Amino acid sequence: MPGNTLHADYPWTSPDAPFVVAAPMMKITLGRLAVSVSANGGLGFLAGGFDLSPLAKDLGETAEFAKSQGLQLHDGILPIGVGFQNWGSDLQLALAALKEHPVAAVWFFAPKQLSDLLDWAKQIRAVSGGKTKIWVQIGTVAEALEVAKTTQPDVIVIQGADSGGHGLAQRASLLTLLPEVIDALAEERIDIPVIAAGGIVDGRGAAAALTLGAAGVALGTRFLACSEAVIAKGYQDQVLSVTDGGASTVGTTIYDVVRGIHGWPRAYNGRGIANSTYHDAEQGMSEAENVEKYETAVQQGDAGWGPEGRMTTYAGTGVGLVREVMSAGEIVKSVQKEAVQTLQRSTAKYVK
Amino acid sequence: MPGNTLHADYPWTSPDAPFVVAAPMMKITLGRLAVSVSANGGLGFLAGGFDLSPLAKDLGETAEFAKSQGLQLHDGILPIGVGFQNWGSDLQLALAALKEHPVAAVWFFAPKQLSDLLDWAKQIRAVSGGKTKIWVQIGTVAEALEVAKTTQPDVIVIQGADSGGHGLAQRASLLTLLPEVIDALAEERIDIPVIAAGGIVDGRGAAAALTLGAAGVALGTRFLACSEAVIAKGYQDQVLSVTDGGASTVGTTIYDVVRGIHGWPRAYNGRGIANSTYHDAEQGMSEAENVEKYETAVQQGDAGWGPEGRMTTYAGTGVGLVREVMSAGEIVKSVQKEAVQTLQRSTAKYVK
Repeated sequence: MPGNTLHADYPWTSPDAPFVVAAPMMKITLGRLAVSVSANGGLGFLAGGFDLSPLAKDLGETAEFAKSQGLQLHDGILPIGVGFQNWGSDLQLALAALKEHPVAAVWFFAPKQLSDLLDWAKQIRAVSGGKTKIWVQIGTVAEALEVAKTTQPDVIVIQGADSGGHGLAQRASLLTLLPEVIDALAEERIDIPVIAAGGIVDGRGAAAALTLGAAGVALGTRFLACSEAVIAKGYQDQVLSVTDGGASTVGTTIYDVVRGIHGWPRAYNGRGIANSTYHDAEQGMSEAENVEKYETAVQQGDAGWGPEGRMTTYAGTGVGLVREVMSAGEIVKSVQKEAVQTLQRSTAKYVK
Repeated sequence: MPGNTLHADYPWTSPDAPFVVAAPMMKITLGRLAVSVSANGGLGFLAGGFDLSPLAKDLGETAEFAKSQGLQLHDGILPIGVGFQNWGSDLQLALAALKEHPVAAVWFFAPKQLSDLLDWAKQIRAVSGGKTKIWVQIGTVAEALEVAKTTQPDVIVIQGADSGGHGLAQRASLLTLLPEVIDALAEERIDIPVIAAGGIVDGRGAAAALTLGAAGVALGTRFLACSEAVIAKGYQDQVLSVTDGGASTVGTTIYDVVRGIHGWPRAYNGRGIANSTYHDAEQGMSEAENVEKYETAVQQGDAGWGPEGRMTTYAGTGVGLVREVMSAGEIVKSVQKEAVQTLQRSTAKYVK
């Protein structure tokens, strides 16, 4: 059995290296990034977000870009995935886009209720003849078990508490959540591979997730610092400069408020770098005033970011480990290589 | 170099197995537990808590128990450690107890300010002729760097966000905090071994911590379910029955309030299983009423615990992975064995 147990379903991935995924990040991970990751032995996800009206056009451009890069279709399928924020997404728009441009996987996240995913999975499987694999992201053991028994996804993504952007406000990190989910699935004799997300930035984190039982790893924050990310310079510069990720980032809903994004299920918040928007809200500034100041900051361009800035800088606690901009492909290769070296080195200390 | 790089300083520990520590838990990890851990190749800590008036007597009884178990003094030193909650601890009481019964290590935690630890370290090193090693627990990269440069401890304990009981309210998990601290120390050319704490329950978590760069691992929650723990049956039963640790536990200060414990530095809270004390506080119950109800629950004995109960059940997010009561020694051995097996198995997938 190769190291990458998911290789059979995603045959362009490296068979003998850890399975590395670029997680969907709304407005940031689009076609070029997804294609670059898949062209380098990983699996990249284009972020559909919650407004799917541009999805068909985005996928069309992505297919063109893939062709220009020599990235082949596999069994008629574009070898990338698409991520959805299901609470706000329109299934018909998704189906229309995926019918025109079938992809290898869809990643569901944050439906209003988990049972909503049944219809999504059924219809996407139908439109792709089962070729599009269903991934579902969860944040608790209870969610994992419910999803495994109802939607029966092809992959479960376990999102630990260190993740950037949105996630359940109350959650464990992968350190305990991942093995507890794996044990719970095994107890029910459910065999679904799990991908670890939240706090994995380099080969050390990837190696840790593999020892905890993951079949592969998904990175978000790390890909904020890649040349293919669609990201403002002010945002990317802040990601590179911030240290002490646990102390510098906070889980909050204020960044949704100032950006005018309503509709996230109540159990969720978003982790980002604490800035003036957050600190002022904590000090009691009214939402109306905070929104007004945010809109002024938007006009400042890159200067609107930074610890004294007001622009939202979603990032996980691993942001302190992100120190340079690399290409998406280099990130995939370096994480794979460093993960294996880390495992070898750690084992060699105890096994002669 | 043996796997256990700390073996030279703690020569009764297993040289070729991961270094496993039983973390101090106030009123729960006392002499029998600490001795049992050290007698089985680990390092056990007797919890001094913040009221050190019984410490000299506790250490005297522990020394007797160690002798009865055939656990030798090493270089005149009792082969266990003692933990302090420094914000409330009296240094003179500590010195008197440690002079009478020197121990292998002291573990400092939560001083009012980090600079307070300088005097503690200096005086304890003086009273033991440098034989008592200084351990300091931190929760951020900034704390690690400050402590490393000032107190210059022999060991830094890094406490990630999954830990039970008290810790910094705003923190990353070990997944990102541990490698970021290790990189920050390396950048400053500081060579102090780090022990990982917070979310490690079994060999999988231990293996993960080792891949992230830890020189050893400290377990707290897991030792709540050991036969040597001083713990009410109601508490231990709840630890065994609770699942989904991230969803079942919360970080809060309400448990200090009802127990009448004042003085924790403001940046700290405590993670415990969410129960009626917590839920009522969230619903707006007055502290006075919550205290009164708590005091009634205390009278109920073991029935005062449970999800509908009111008794404090500090535990980390790993509580869902704790499923049976074992002896402290069996826990040490099984974590060591499983950690090495996990590393071997994970490596073998990618290295032929």
